[in-house]
Order: sequence, then C-alpha cells, then structure tokens
Amino acid sequence: MFFDNASTTKLDEDLIDELKNLNEEFFYNPGGLYSKSRNVKKQIEDDRKKIIECLGGESSDNFVFTGSATEGNNLAIMGVLRKNFTKMLFSMGEHPSVYNTALELKNRGYNVEFITLDKTGKVDLDDFKNKMTADVDFVSIMHVSNETGAINDICSLVEIAKGVNEKVIFHSDGVQAYGKIDVDVSTLGVDMYTISAHKIYGCKGIGGLYIKKGVNLKPIIFGGGQESGLRSGTENYMGIHIFSKVVERAKNDLLKNSNLVKLLKLKFIEKLSSTSLKYSLHSYDDNSPYIVSVSFDKCRAETLLNMLNDNMIYIGNGSACSSKNSGNRILQNMGVPKDGVEGNLRISFSKHNTVGEVEKLVDCLSLCVGDYLSKAR
Amino acid sequence: MFFDNASTTKLDEDLIDELKNLNEEFFYNPGGLYSKSRNVKKQIEDDRKKIIECLGGESSDNFVFTGSATEGNNLAIMGVLRKNFTKMLFSMGEHPSVYNTALELKNRGYNVEFITLDKTGKVDLDDFKNKMTADVDFVSIMHVSNETGAINDICSLVEIAKGVNEKVIFHSDGVQAYGKIDVDVSTLGVDMYTISAHKIYGCKGIGGLYIKKGVNLKPIIFGGGQESGLRSGTENYMGIHIFSKVVERAKNDLLKNSNLVKLLKLKFIEKLSSTSLKYSLHSYDDNSPYIVSVSFDKCRAETLLNMLNDNMIYIGNGSACSSKNSGNRILQNMGVPKDGVEGNLRISFSKHNTVGEVEKLVDCLSLCVGDYLSKAR
Repeated sequence: MFFDNASTTKLDEDLIDELKNLNEEFFYNPGGLYSKSRNVKKQIEDDRKKIIECLGGESSDNFVFTGSATEGNNLAIMGVLRKNFTKMLFSMGEHPSVYNTALELKNRGYNVEFITLDKTGKVDLDDFKNKMTADVDFVSIMHVSNETGAINDICSLVEIAKGVNEKVIFHSDGVQAYGKIDVDVSTLGVDMYTISAHKIYGCKGIGGLYIKKGVNLKPIIFGGGQESGLRSGTENYMGIHIFSKVVERAKNDLLKNSNLVKLLKLKFIEKLSSTSLKYSLHSYDDNSPYIVSVSFDKCRAETLLNMLNDNMIYIGNGSACSSKNSGNRILQNMGVPKDGVEGNLRISFSKHNTVGEVEKLVDCLSLCVGDYLSKAR
Repeated sequence: MFFDNASTTKLDEDLIDELKNLNEEFFYNPGGLYSKSRNVKKQIEDDRKKIIECLGGESSDNFVFTGSATEGNNLAIMGVLRKNFTKMLFSMGEHPSVYNTALELKNRGYNVEFITLDKTGKVDLDDFKNKMTADVDFVSIMHVSNETGAINDICSLVEIAKGVNEKVIFHSDGVQAYGKIDVDVSTLGVDMYTISAHKIYGCKGIGGLYIKKGVNLKPIIFGGGQESGLRSGTENYMGIHIFSKVVERAKNDLLKNSNLVKLLKLKFIEKLSSTSLKYSLHSYDDNSPYIVSVSFDKCRAETLLNMLNDNMIYIGNGSACSSKNSGNRILQNMGVPKDGVEGNLRISFSKHNTVGEVEKLVDCLSLCVGDYLSKAR
C-alpha cells in the first residue's frame, strides 16, 4: 500500500500505451526545418496552450517546460534575479528547491529574508506584513506545503505584496496544489507558478513554470535557444505531451479525486482517534486533504517507517526529495516540539488509495506503535 | 527517409515495452526510506556504474544525470567556474550549449577566448598552442563536431593543455562521439565528458556528465540534494535506466553500426561524385562517418530542404537545436565561402538507414538541385 503520493505517483497506465505512438510519429527534433519537425513543434505549442488554459492563464502568458519542478523553481528565482535587488522574501515552509536556492542567494550576498510559519504551517501573516516592505523585489511562497498540506492564501498574500510594491514579482510553488485544490493563476494574481508532472500521474523528468506576460526572465541553462530562449535543450516531447494530458485530466477529475481523498483523510483521522494511540496531528482541517502529517508519542519516525515497510506499507517522513532533516525545519518553525518533529510521518493519498487501505493503515499503525512502545519500555 | 539523425534518433522500440514494467515496479521516489524506494536508488547507482564503465572511467569517478546534454554542458562549465578564473578556452566549433554558455561568461566579464578551426573543422593546433597559456583554468573542446563530423584529437589536446598547466580542467562535449566512434575517457584524459541519450536511441529529457574523481563542481540547480548534491530534482529513473541500456548497447554495437554507417557515407560520396552535380564537401575522410556536410553550388539550403521534404526526405541544415544561423559560425570559421555556408546541408546517418535509402537520397538530390537551378536561371 502506497501512501507516499506527495513524493511521486505512478504514470497513468493508459498513457504508457501512447508512448509507442509518440515515439513512432513524433520523435523528430522540433528544431528541424522539415514538416515532421514543424509538426512536433506545433504539438508542443498546443500542449503549452492547453496547460496555460488549465492553469487559468491568459493566452499571451508563457509556460516554460523544464526538466523538473525543481528546475522550474530555480528558473523562477535565478531567472528573475537582478544585481540591484534590494530584498527577497521566502517562507520558512518552502520545498528545498526554493529554500536552498534562497540560501544560495544569501550566501552570494543578497538580502534574503524568511517569513516564519504560524502554528498551522501557513505563512505567519503578521511576519509577512512586517517584512513585506516597499523595497522587496521578489517573493516566493508555496501554495500548498509538501510537508503538512497547509494551504497559503496566495491571493491575499499577493494583494498585500502588490499593495506595498506594485512592481514586486510574486512566485508560488504550486507542485502540491495543482490538480489537488482549485488553482487559477489569474485569480491568485501570481507572476510565476511552478507545477510538476510526476506528482499528478505524469512522467518524471518534466516540470514547468507558468510566467505571466511582462515578467522578464533570463535563462539558467544556455544553448540552442529552445523555449523562447528560456530553457535550452532538445524538447522532451513525450514528457511534454503526457504532461499536458495529465494536467487536463487533473483539472477534469479535480472534484472526483478530491472528494475521494477528503473521505480518506476523514476516515484516517476518525479511525485513528478511535484507537488508544497517543498522537499529534500537524495537519489541520482546512489543509489539502492529500497530506496528513502526524507523529506518535515517543515513536521515532524512521523506526516506525521500517516497521510499516515490513508490512508492505510505504509512507514518507517528509519531503522525499530532500535531505533527511528538512522536515525538521518546517515543523520546528511551526513550533512542533522536538518529539513531534522526530516522529513525523507524512501520509499522502492519491486517487488510487481506498478506504479499505486507510483502515488497514490505521490497524497496522496501531500494531506497530504498540509493538514499538512495548519494546521501548 | 530520415537523414537528420545527429539531431535526434527514435527510441529503440523494444525499450518502449520495458517502460511499462519500469512504471509498475520502479515508479517510487528514490528519496524515500522504504524498501521500494531504496531499490530504485540502488538501480540508479547500478545504471550510473554501468555508464561510467562503458565510458572507460574508474569506479571512483562520478556521472551526474541531467535533464539534457545541454544541461550537462552547462553544469560542466558553470559548475567548475570560480570567481578567480584567469582564462577559459573554448573552440569556435562548439555546440550552442557550450558556445552560448561561453558567451554568457564573456558577458559577465570573464576572460573567455575562442580557438579557431582549421579548414577541416578541427581545432587549429597552432592557435590552441598559442592560447593555451599557463594561466588557463578551463578548456572545453568538443570531441566530434555536430555540424561536420570533424573529430578533435582530444587525447593530444589534453596532453598539450596539461603539459602547460597540470591543474587545467578539460571538458569535452561527447554528444556526437559516444556510440559512434571509440570513446574512452581515461585514454582521452578528460576531466569531464558530456553525453546524451536521445542521440543514441534513448529517451529525450535525459543526458549526463562524466566527472573524474577530484574535479570539484558546484551545482547549477539547487534543491533536495539528489545526484550527490550536483543536480537536484526527483530522479527520472525511466529515462536513466533506458539511458544506461542504450549506452551499453551503443558500446556493444559500435563496430557493427560503424561499419554500416561508413558504407553509407562511402556510397553517398561515391554516388554523388558520379553525378554531374557541382558541390562542396565540408566533411573529410577522417571525420565521423555519421555526419556529412555538403553544399551544392548556387543552391540555398532552405529551398533544397523544402524540396527534399516534399519528397519525404528529412535532413538538417546544421544543428537542429540551435538558432537558424549557428551553422554559419562553424563553417565560416573553417573558411567555407559564403555560398557554401548558405547552402550547407547536414546529412546524418543512423543504424536504421540503408544503402538503398542513400541511393534514393542522391537520386532525389540530383532531381531537386537540377530543378532548383533550372528555375533559378
């Protein structure tokens, strides 16, 4: 049973069959001058348009395909960076692909400030208002936390930021948001927004950055000038096309999947509360239903994960694509006590999970925690 | 008939079938702590080892998987860059992913010098010896030209460079070399070597950089710390595994494929010379047999390409993954007259081409050129 869906998902099986046709008819390099190449080029532009539309962008906006959402986040930050930047704001809850890029900039001497999180894992509004001064050039705040599922009210944050400095560029990492909660970049008001394919049943090795018209970006990878010069390298059409398919599918199935996953979260918490287990939830009711962060009293996460693994239950202990301690940064910043931080399990659902699986998960957790505590005594 | 194989190749069809199994059993994020994840992690390390071995590296060397060879070249250059670099050398024949990165560094104020090409498209040895002074920190010279197939004697160039400054870091872009001519990074003596998957019948969206033990690199993409911190982002295991398969296959089939392609090149030139067409070859006998650069007197490339396209023959006019004029830079630097530059066609072969196809190509070229010239009269 797989409950680490926030780290990655399996490519939708029906799309595998499509790869064969894509390889046969569309393997050509879109940079060529012949009809076969121009055809692939056209398909890529169609896929780009479709994704922008699904994101709620305007037809004049751009969407740059990258090799991962990590690269998308890097492009947003490093691409917009100017030597004369006075101040850049990031939240303490960011994924390592944003957080570590911010640290890199701090190391290079830029004025980088981090906004603290409140108890629920959202950006602390007072701290944001304090730090969001008129000299801030750039803000990056994630939409949904990959650790806790906390949802930042990006719309309000953008409003506050642009109210103070209308020229501020606002980026949001939407990797755990798109396809899971309502996303409309125009309503959100963001200038840039990152999404990933493999978190919504697409291929790994492909992500992308939405860029509002007028935002001036420089590339971080130089070469043949693909992607309007913003990301060189032969286009990965297979990945791109499947990406546009899963983006569309995620939008169409948003409500259906969301209803299922809300039920799974509810069942999980309901059943957990009916056990005698002592635990702390670090995810709240208004979070994304896809992620539940929980720790069991006096249980270290790694040991529990191994015990669950022996029962063929696979869950995460926070961002899988991060160094082992990154979960600490976020929960610590939320004020979770040391025990809770060290015991943090991240259970994340997908459209493939069932209520039956969730029930088994809680049963197994009960046994494992019981076993753990009896041995620890 | 596809004769633009230097721009990209079709993924080997039998490997498509493997994707289904990879998606089923190995979709897990290698960053997880559970057995399924650790298994993917192990597979990736096995694939890495296999590629290093095929390249002729030592087991202590590294190979970093990137989202493209373009990113690999960028990583080699930008990753090794230090503020106190005195001088960096590049050849005038480099692919845009190296050449434009070098121009970017020049723009940023670094001392970047370009080595001119000789008439055959190789690095001019005298110019290299002149510019390769003791203060040179970094050299990047491609192994095989993507425009003409010219082969640089990397082994000798490294020897000269290290003889002048033993600490110089030598990188070579091997995208058009690996799987097409003999490559052994240890014999070549390079510190870094870039290869691509989709040029040797693998997937697009995956490339990599060989890094000799001891070479100190910094990442250009920051995040979760994958690839020993050198390239963050969830690993694209499907792409990686197929990459290692085609790298191995390319090595095993090197001689067989090379013999076929040598024959194709021979037949092409032989048959071409038996026609009454007036043409200039910009590729020489000791070049890679995979690429033939040729121009027909008084024929502009674009028109000819369109005429061939109408006959369902697809060829390139130089690096497909580059701006339309980049072919000019290289041929111009070789001293090819303006007419030859503007008429340049790049015919590039693969293991799938046949002698029959090559004969048809020349027949069609004869007709098209004849037609072109009669209309131009």
